[in-house]
Amino acid sequence: MPIEKEKKSATVSRRELLRGLGLGTAALALPELSQTAHAADAAHADVVIVGAGFAGLMAARTLQRAGKKVVLLEARDRVGGRVKAGKIAERAVDVGGMWVGPTQTRLLETIKEYGLHLTPQFEKGKNIFEMGHKRYMAEGEGLGLDKETEAEYERVVRELTKLSDPIPLAAPWTIARAQEFDDMTVDEWFRATTKDKGLLEFFRAWTRAICTADAYQISLLYFLFYLKSGDNFEMLFGFENAAQAWTVKETMHRVAGKIAEELGDAVMVGAAVRAISQDTASVLVESDKRKWRADFAIVAMPLPLSARINYQPPLPPQRDILAQHMPMGSVIKYWVAYEKPWWREKGFNGMLQSDEAPSQFIAGDGTPEEGKPGLLVGFMEGHHAMNWTGKSMEERKKKVVERLVSFLGAEAANPIDYEDQDWPADPWSRGCYGASMTPGIMTTVGRVIREPYGRIHWAGSETSERWMGYIDGAIRSGDRAAAETLARYK
Amino acid sequence: MPIEKEKKSATVSRRELLRGLGLGTAALALPELSQTAHAADAAHADVVIVGAGFAGLMAARTLQRAGKKVVLLEARDRVGGRVKAGKIAERAVDVGGMWVGPTQTRLLETIKEYGLHLTPQFEKGKNIFEMGHKRYMAEGEGLGLDKETEAEYERVVRELTKLSDPIPLAAPWTIARAQEFDDMTVDEWFRATTKDKGLLEFFRAWTRAICTADAYQISLLYFLFYLKSGDNFEMLFGFENAAQAWTVKETMHRVAGKIAEELGDAVMVGAAVRAISQDTASVLVESDKRKWRADFAIVAMPLPLSARINYQPPLPPQRDILAQHMPMGSVIKYWVAYEKPWWREKGFNGMLQSDEAPSQFIAGDGTPEEGKPGLLVGFMEGHHAMNWTGKSMEERKKKVVERLVSFLGAEAANPIDYEDQDWPADPWSRGCYGASMTPGIMTTVGRVIREPYGRIHWAGSETSERWMGYIDGAIRSGDRAAAETLARYK
Repeated sequence: MPIEKEKKSATVSRRELLRGLGLGTAALALPELSQTAHAADAAHADVVIVGAGFAGLMAARTLQRAGKKVVLLEARDRVGGRVKAGKIAERAVDVGGMWVGPTQTRLLETIKEYGLHLTPQFEKGKNIFEMGHKRYMAEGEGLGLDKETEAEYERVVRELTKLSDPIPLAAPWTIARAQEFDDMTVDEWFRATTKDKGLLEFFRAWTRAICTADAYQISLLYFLFYLKSGDNFEMLFGFENAAQAWTVKETMHRVAGKIAEELGDAVMVGAAVRAISQDTASVLVESDKRKWRADFAIVAMPLPLSARINYQPPLPPQRDILAQHMPMGSVIKYWVAYEKPWWREKGFNGMLQSDEAPSQFIAGDGTPEEGKPGLLVGFMEGHHAMNWTGKSMEERKKKVVERLVSFLGAEAANPIDYEDQDWPADPWSRGCYGASMTPGIMTTVGRVIREPYGRIHWAGSETSERWMGYIDGAIRSGDRAAAETLARYK
Repeated sequence: MPIEKEKKSATVSRRELLRGLGLGTAALALPELSQTAHAADAAHADVVIVGAGFAGLMAARTLQRAGKKVVLLEARDRVGGRVKAGKIAERAVDVGGMWVGPTQTRLLETIKEYGLHLTPQFEKGKNIFEMGHKRYMAEGEGLGLDKETEAEYERVVRELTKLSDPIPLAAPWTIARAQEFDDMTVDEWFRATTKDKGLLEFFRAWTRAICTADAYQISLLYFLFYLKSGDNFEMLFGFENAAQAWTVKETMHRVAGKIAEELGDAVMVGAAVRAISQDTASVLVESDKRKWRADFAIVAMPLPLSARINYQPPLPPQRDILAQHMPMGSVIKYWVAYEKPWWREKGFNGMLQSDEAPSQFIAGDGTPEEGKPGLLVGFMEGHHAMNWTGKSMEERKKKVVERLVSFLGAEAANPIDYEDQDWPADPWSRGCYGASMTPGIMTTVGRVIREPYGRIHWAGSETSERWMGYIDGAIRSGDRAAAETLARYK
C-alpha cells in the first residue's frame, strides 16, 4: 500500500512536529517518508495507545469520546496494568493498586461515574507500631510515641513540608536549591536532619513504604517533588482523610474493567508492542498481534520499560538517559485470609507497621463489609522485595505468617489462604508502584519527562505532575496525553 | 522443522540446567519443548553470541578455536562495540576505547598476537591542572599542588586504597561493611573524608572522569570494587605505568577488526537481536537478519541494554532489577586537530584537566608519531555529557575550543578539524564507558551479575571481575563466558 499523500495527518505541519520534538531544526531526524516497505499489512487508526493501565485506558477513552478512532494495545491478557485482580479465600481482591484518597479527584470521579462504591479503610481499634526494636500501641492510626519522640517526629515532618511546599510541580528543577537537593539522597537528608536513631529507621522504612525504593536510592529533589505531588507527608502516609482513605467495594480492577468495556473492540490484549517507527506522515506500531499505522502514538507504559521498545528513529538520548536512571520500585503485595477478623475481638485494627525486615506495612485490615473472611493485606518493600522476589510463594508465606504471629499471637499461625503478587517478576511491570529518580537526574534530563518525541506522546503515572506514581496520576497523565494529541489535529 | 530429539545438546542434563539457573527446582520455568512453531526457518549454530564488542568477539573466537560452530550477531554495521573508528584531519583515530595499561594483560596479549604496536602516551612538558578556580602547572602528569594540599590528597587516596584493597573481586558483597558502604554514595564518602573544598571538587571530577557517572550516583561499595578491579586509584587515574600508558599505533579498533577477520563468516552485522527464547533443548535467537537455533547463547551487550531483548521465559526478576539499577555512564569523546602540536613548542604536553564544566579531562596529546597533524583528545563526562548529548557537534566544538583557548592561548582558536562521538545518542551503547551500580544494588542483586539463565550466559565488560568497564575486562568476560559454555558440553 503506497503512502497516501492526502491524509488527515498532513494537517500537522513540519514546524508543529519540530515543536513537538522540543528540538532545534538541526536535531530533527524524522525521515520524510519511510514506512512504505513495512506498512503494507498495517491496519489504520487515528491514535494508537500502548499499554492498558489507567493511563492508557483514560487516554483511549478521552480520544474515543472525542470521535477519534483509537486502538489500545496491551501486552498482557488483561487490562489494568499495575491494578490487578487476585483471589483469596474465593474472594476477588486487588493485588495491585487499591486505595483512593480525598484529593485524588480524577480517580474519585471515575469511580463515581461508573457507579462503583467506596469502603472506608477499617481502623477501629489499636494498631501496633514497631520502631527501634520497641513496640507501640495506639488507637486508629496513631503512632503512640512518647512526647519527646513525637515532638522530634513532628519537627522532621515540618522540615520536609517546608522544603516540598514551594516545589513547582511542572518544573521542580527550577528551584534555587535544585542542584543541591538533586545531588543528595533522601537518606543523607534524614541522617543530617535527626539524631534520633529510632526515628531515622522509621523514616527510612516509611520511604520504602511509599516509594518502594530505599531512601539511599532516591534524589532528595525528586522526593520533595513526590511529596508535593501527593500533597504532603501526612497525606501520603495516612489513612483517614489521606491517600489510603478508601478502597473500592467492587475492587479497583473493576474500575479498569469498566473503562475497557466502554472502549469495546478498541482494546486488544496479548498485543505486546515491539517497535514504533515514525516519519513526517505517520507512526507505525508493530505488536505481537498486528501492525497499526496511525497519526500519533501514546506510550502509556512504566517509564523505564518504555525504552525497551525499538524506536525508529531512535529515542533522543536524554529520554533514554531518563529511562535508565529511573528504575521501578520493588514491592510484593500479599493477602492473608482467616475465617474471620479475630484480631478485632482482641481490640486490634489489624494495622501493623515496622522498621524491620521484610515489611514496613506488615498488615492492614482488608476484611469485606460483611465481616468475613478476615483479610489482612501487606507489602514487602524496597530492598526487602529485591531479596524476596523470585522466591517461592511458600517461602514468603512462611515469613509473613511468622511476622503476623509475632505481632498478633498464635491465632495468626494458620491462615486459610495466602496469595501474593511478586511485581518485580511481572515482565510487563518489572516493579511497582512507580519509578523513582536517582540523584542528579531531575536537574539534567528531568525536563524531558513529558516532552513528545515527534508523533509519540508519553503517558503513565510517572509522567504526572499530580499524584505521580498513583492511579490518580495515571489517569491525569492519560488526560494530558489525550489533550496534547487532540490539540495536534487543530 | 520438528525438534530433533537426539541432538548434541541433549547431553546437558536438566540438573545441569538447574545449576545454571542458580535456582531451586521450584523456580525453574523453562518449558520442555516450545520452539517448534517459531523455529521452522531457523539456521543452526552451536553457540550464538549477541554483540560484537570485545567481549563477544573474544567469546566467539575462543569457541570457534575450540571447534564450535558459532555465529556472532551484531546490531550495528561494524564490530568493536564501544571501540569505534573515527576520522580527524583525514586520519583514523579511536572515538571509543583507546588506551591500554601494563596490568591489562589480556588486551596486551591480544594486541601482540595480531602484530600490532603500542605508542606511549605523550607527556613530555608541562600539564595544566585546574582545581577550585586555580591553575597549577607541573611536568608530565604531576599535579603541582602545594605541600599541604598534596599531603591531604595523598591521605584521601590512601584511605580509598585501604578500603578497596581487601575487596574480593568475585564477591564484593561479602565484606563485613558491605551494607554500610553500599547504602552510601561516593560523594558522601568524599565529603566525610576531606574538608578541603578544592580537593573535594577534584575527587568529584576525577570520579566523573573514570566512571563517566557522578559521585552522587554511585554506590561506595561498587566504587571500591571498581578501584580494586583496576588495581587502585593511581592505576586508574594515571598515564605512565598506568591505565592510560599506551595507545595502539594502528588504532584500537584495528584490534577488533583483526579478531573479526579471524572469525570470518561467523560475524553477521546489521543483525540486531530482538528476542531470545529457550526451552530444555535449545535457544532460539531472533535477529533482524534471521533466526538461529543453538545449544547456548552468550549475551555480550552493555548490561542495562541486555534487558531490552524479549526473553521467553522472561528474565529472572533479580537480573532485571540489576539492569534497571545499573545505568550506562554518559560521555562524549572529542578530537581537535591542528596543523602541528604547537603547544609542545610552548613547553606544554597538551594534558589539561579541570574540575569545571564540561570536561574533567579537557585534553591529552594524541598526535601521531610522525609529529603531525597535532591532535588533542578529550571528554565531556557524567552530568556534563547528559547536558551536552543530543546537541549539535557545532555547539560542542565551540565550547571545547573556548576551553582550549582558555588554557593554551589564542593559537587553539582555529582547529583544522573537530570530531566527536556522542555515546549516549548511540542506540546500541546508550552511553560509555561502562555501567555503574547505584546504591543498595550490589548487596541485593549484585550476585546475579554472572549467573547464567538457563542456556543463556552473560559477557560484556560490566560482568568482569578484573578491569570491569575496560576493554581488558570485556576480553576477560568473553574468555569466561566461552569457558562456561564449553564446560556445559563436557
